[in-house]
Amino acid sequence: MGSQHLTIDGAMSRALELAARGPAYGPNPRVGCVLLAPPTGTDLLRDRATPEAVDARARRVLAEGYHRGAGTPHAEAAALADARERGIDVRGATAVVTLEPCAHTGRTPPCADALLAAGVAEVVHAVDDPNPAAAGGAARLRAAGVRVVRGVRAAEGTALLHVWLTAAARGTPYVTLKTATSLDGFVAAQDGTSRWITGPEARAHAHRVRATVDAIAVGSGTVRADDPALTARATGPDGVERLADHQPLRVVVGRSGIPPQARLRGEGGALVHVRTHDVREVLAELGARDVRHVLLEGGPTLATAFLAADAVDELHAYVAPVLLGAGKRVVGDLGVTTIGAARRFRTVEVRRVGDDALTVSRRIG
Amino acid sequence: MGSQHLTIDGAMSRALELAARGPAYGPNPRVGCVLLAPPTGTDLLRDRATPEAVDARARRVLAEGYHRGAGTPHAEAAALADARERGIDVRGATAVVTLEPCAHTGRTPPCADALLAAGVAEVVHAVDDPNPAAAGGAARLRAAGVRVVRGVRAAEGTALLHVWLTAAARGTPYVTLKTATSLDGFVAAQDGTSRWITGPEARAHAHRVRATVDAIAVGSGTVRADDPALTARATGPDGVERLADHQPLRVVVGRSGIPPQARLRGEGGALVHVRTHDVREVLAELGARDVRHVLLEGGPTLATAFLAADAVDELHAYVAPVLLGAGKRVVGDLGVTTIGAARRFRTVEVRRVGDDALTVSRRIG
Repeated sequence: MGSQHLTIDGAMSRALELAARGPAYGPNPRVGCVLLAPPTGTDLLRDRATPEAVDARARRVLAEGYHRGAGTPHAEAAALADARERGIDVRGATAVVTLEPCAHTGRTPPCADALLAAGVAEVVHAVDDPNPAAAGGAARLRAAGVRVVRGVRAAEGTALLHVWLTAAARGTPYVTLKTATSLDGFVAAQDGTSRWITGPEARAHAHRVRATVDAIAVGSGTVRADDPALTARATGPDGVERLADHQPLRVVVGRSGIPPQARLRGEGGALVHVRTHDVREVLAELGARDVRHVLLEGGPTLATAFLAADAVDELHAYVAPVLLGAGKRVVGDLGVTTIGAARRFRTVEVRRVGDDALTVSRRIG
Repeated sequence: MGSQHLTIDGAMSRALELAARGPAYGPNPRVGCVLLAPPTGTDLLRDRATPEAVDARARRVLAEGYHRGAGTPHAEAAALADARERGIDVRGATAVVTLEPCAHTGRTPPCADALLAAGVAEVVHAVDDPNPAAAGGAARLRAAGVRVVRGVRAAEGTALLHVWLTAAARGTPYVTLKTATSLDGFVAAQDGTSRWITGPEARAHAHRVRATVDAIAVGSGTVRADDPALTARATGPDGVERLADHQPLRVVVGRSGIPPQARLRGEGGALVHVRTHDVREVLAELGARDVRHVLLEGGPTLATAFLAADAVDELHAYVAPVLLGAGKRVVGDLGVTTIGAARRFRTVEVRRVGDDALTVSRRIG
């Protein structure tokens, strides 16, 4: 790394790569940080053309770091520790970080203070911190004489943090609804059989998604009907299926009890029973448990309740090349009687997964 | 072209490219033909290692041709005419052709005879002719002392001719069902409104498909409800939408009459009213009219009848990122009550078309 040189723009790309290595689940955002040496022979602060101008010269990379999840150092602290361990002086350096450094003391001290204490002269970040408790880092740094530039590669930073930013700004979890249907919108045949409408590749893909969320929610009716384990499983290089390292919280919504022998009482994430049908209460309860991203996995009653409450942020719709003509519908009545009132989402991605189509779409507005 | 040299394999690739320039609609298959000079200084027939071995040497391209649609010369005749016009001697040449040369006299004389008359020494084809009336070309050529090699790039040849081969072997049209639905399988809201569930890109794509088929069929109920024009339209480089050069036959299925002011009586393809609900009768009637490919465009009654009769070869399912919860379903009862009896198709392609997902799938077996 000692010989690597990057522009600020290049360092932000690198910081975004680092950020993406962190876990998508957990209460904290994924953040990456790269420390660049000051430009040699120039005064950074006097040399700038405009207050927001970004230095275009490639500079030596001093250190880097990223956040590895709640309870571990923030990205800025990880980068400063990296420099310290290798005996590198970061005074006068530029910290290139994907999210505005925090100004609040949580499980770790404020990053703004750590950067100040280390003598960093400039901070460039992609995305402003929307969290009222954590924001203010840029202001604190500026007040202490540090040059702060915001918005570098902001679109990429925002895209990486889309789920977290939405949840943090709103204070309730980001809600992803997963559906697996026939082309005519059924999740099961008339006799209730549904194994399998979608194929093994779609199921494996859904398991990979489970390993990126904080919680999976089902209705209590689904627990009784399907007895799901609600674990995130992955097939290792040895071909053996096992539990993924991260297991999401298992959330059962509804007033009915959970049978003592239910599979979701077995090995896997912690079990939470939210005894209400009120979507707002469910989201408040999960928000209080620091859930940033909840995956709704069924069934139609739960999906319909969340859709009717306009509480679905993202749809993962796996559609199999199958027609049933009749059966159990994926969602019930949404009160939509005319096409203009349809619940319309904005497509992010369409991809083939095995024999099935996966459309990822998001709430409009 | 005088300086171009190709191996037999390369010439077949070229012939497949040429074939694809022909129209996908019409009673005849798309065929391409390349004439290669004999290997210099060798006797092709004495030089071969095995009867089916393909000469690996690059040879001069003498001429080429492809079939431009019913009533125009077959590919072999077009290539021979190309050579003749340019004064090129094709005696001893190898004809590389995507489909077995025909042995029957239709609107044009048999290609096998034309190749014999021209003194061609070897014929290499990709796909055998499945048409009982036209087959026998290879046998006739062999009997006359021409070396015949079959099956070169057969998979590509078969893929190009999939629709035609299926229709020709069966004697009834290849049936493609097009659906445009919400994610929950509705083609319209409860009040019947459906403009638009899928987006403009999906509709433009569907119009491009219309311009490749022989016929479009709808039920008489759809004519009364939606008054479709059933034309193939395309937007030109000037941004103006106009009728495509090829207009498919417009087929109305069902006993009810077609209103005198119906839009499908206007400019566009010829109108055929098939006064039956019997799928076999519809297909026989269309087969008798030389229809090789019919596109079913709705509505649910027609789709259900064809699916129930197991008469759908291909599905084009456009799915919009929209949920309705209730409305007019894409297909009615298919008699499927358990998942094992589902009508399952094999996915050929999944692609994003605007905001919608298009899954192209085919009948299994």
